[in-house]
Amino acid sequence: MAVSERISAPRRRGVTAMDVATAAGVSQSAVSRSFTPGASVAPVTRARVLEVAQELGYRPNLIARSLITRRSGMIGVAIGNLRNQIYPVMLEKLAEGLSAQGYRILLFTAPLDGDADPELAQIMRYQPDAVVLAATSMSSALALECRAASVPVVLFNRMARGAAGSEISSVTGANHDGGRAIGRLIGAAGHQRPAFIAGHALASTSIDREAGYRAGLQEAGLPPPLVTHGNFHERDTREAAAALLQRQDQPDAVFAASDQMAIVAMDVARHRFGLRVPEDVSIIGFDDAPAASWPSYDLTSYAQPAAAMVAATIELLLERIGEPHVAPRQIVVPGRLVLRGSARLPPGIVRDADNQ
Amino acid sequence: MAVSERISAPRRRGVTAMDVATAAGVSQSAVSRSFTPGASVAPVTRARVLEVAQELGYRPNLIARSLITRRSGMIGVAIGNLRNQIYPVMLEKLAEGLSAQGYRILLFTAPLDGDADPELAQIMRYQPDAVVLAATSMSSALALECRAASVPVVLFNRMARGAAGSEISSVTGANHDGGRAIGRLIGAAGHQRPAFIAGHALASTSIDREAGYRAGLQEAGLPPPLVTHGNFHERDTREAAAALLQRQDQPDAVFAASDQMAIVAMDVARHRFGLRVPEDVSIIGFDDAPAASWPSYDLTSYAQPAAAMVAATIELLLERIGEPHVAPRQIVVPGRLVLRGSARLPPGIVRDADNQ
Repeated sequence: MAVSERISAPRRRGVTAMDVATAAGVSQSAVSRSFTPGASVAPVTRARVLEVAQELGYRPNLIARSLITRRSGMIGVAIGNLRNQIYPVMLEKLAEGLSAQGYRILLFTAPLDGDADPELAQIMRYQPDAVVLAATSMSSALALECRAASVPVVLFNRMARGAAGSEISSVTGANHDGGRAIGRLIGAAGHQRPAFIAGHALASTSIDREAGYRAGLQEAGLPPPLVTHGNFHERDTREAAAALLQRQDQPDAVFAASDQMAIVAMDVARHRFGLRVPEDVSIIGFDDAPAASWPSYDLTSYAQPAAAMVAATIELLLERIGEPHVAPRQIVVPGRLVLRGSARLPPGIVRDADNQ
Repeated sequence: MAVSERISAPRRRGVTAMDVATAAGVSQSAVSRSFTPGASVAPVTRARVLEVAQELGYRPNLIARSLITRRSGMIGVAIGNLRNQIYPVMLEKLAEGLSAQGYRILLFTAPLDGDADPELAQIMRYQPDAVVLAATSMSSALALECRAASVPVVLFNRMARGAAGSEISSVTGANHDGGRAIGRLIGAAGHQRPAFIAGHALASTSIDREAGYRAGLQEAGLPPPLVTHGNFHERDTREAAAALLQRQDQPDAVFAASDQMAIVAMDVARHRFGLRVPEDVSIIGFDDAPAASWPSYDLTSYAQPAAAMVAATIELLLERIGEPHVAPRQIVVPGRLVLRGSARLPPGIVRDADNQ
């Protein structure tokens, strides 16, 4: 194999960019640009340079380079909730997409829907080219400071709270539309007593999904939902689900603000209350996380397309690196209702098929 | 709040380490050491320095510092399989544990149990202080090159293949012991036709679990297992489970080399073959991943203690950073069988209780 041949050959510490340029038949500047994220260089040239560099064992010192180029090639990513299956999926796609653009992820964990400011202050010390915050948020003050320091920030699956909302770029699913579609589905299928298991009280996703849900229920002529709080947290969700299901006027349809919570609610309904899903109670989630299609749950959910959301995030990042004062954009990626077996269906409507 | 006061105060670009030293009443060297991962400084001094630094808005340029200290403060982490729930759990704990030591994770995705060499060559360009490879492996040649470059490498949940086995540090669960305990459990519970769903053919975890399983079955007087290959992959596992369950001599006990695969197998057994678990077939996994305790699966599994495995990984890393030529160590973290409802139990043995 070429790789092991290269490695077992004598170690060449002294290989320079000029050696690579000569061997590849390109300019030294082309070698430099080939190793600089986002720099302009023909793909065929970059491929040739990388191939020759690998053959010769050339490795630019990116750290030293970053002091000159002011590009570290790193994107700081803070994630508030890796337990929700959608975030590992997103992280994997984001790492792959950024890698294709020459960027690497510097990973931080942040409080779930808390204030990521302290972590973010740490991230900034590594001179990232941009920052992504997933399932967490930041203060307006720090957002402005990042802007002053020319470090673009993109929120993933959250919108900034309050006045900062239009000042910070974000990528979200169609939270209001999705909630509304679920409210209308519940009405059309003849349910009478809707409920909602909310996420963290400060999470824009949960707030927007609930608002859409209320609108959809109202359009269907149903009363507002009973609401309990699962806080995107397993134990809290077990208690929230039990609080709903032990009522005299037990709900006949429960929408949880994430699949993670819907799955917990379904297990509580079946295994603690002995209820049949969906005959006794319909359960619906949001995300279309991997577990939603597992046959034991077969969860009706509003799909957030991870690939499209990650692509939009990378688009926002690349647009802003080098041009940090481009106006903020809030991208809403449309999703779709995935009808499975956990919720009763309106007359004449058939479920979606999974490729099992 | 202190944070927003600090941020809304005039931006102080010119704060130096000397300013922090004066305000904190310590030497400038103490300030420097407080910001250097692994440097010797009293915890109370470091706490005081960090507090004053935050008040003053002091931020050392870690990138510039790394050229002097030869420490980047970054640990390269390559992960081959974020879809298996144990890896996001591990990644979260690793990020938290490393953060407490002043290190950050530079994240890479690598081929699942393939050759992480190309990704690892990328990691090395960022001058990481050490590298962790999870669910993936590397060539012996590259391992030796890392050693020559004084970059410690630790494999997580894998051991190096072949001759390199004793040359690369690793942290694994008790794969052989766990497999053996499962083989003996299956025998003691009176099963007759054991089967095994293997992971990726090159994964040391799957190989060691299978070897232990065969030993345990033999001790129990049972024949060797039927074996199919799920490759730690969902679709492959559906086919592997179906291939076992459609046989005339249908297995009455299936051990899958990961919970991720056991859950897929359970869904195939119940929903495609209409079998009762465990009455018609016992299903057992390995890992005690979060989903194993979800009531719909209630999966008997061999627990790999994530916290202890991450602690051992951090111990190996810290031991080698600065002392990269310390002899390699292979740490095996003991686990335990968690008895739930997916497998028949031997007479007189009771299941474990989950805190649901």
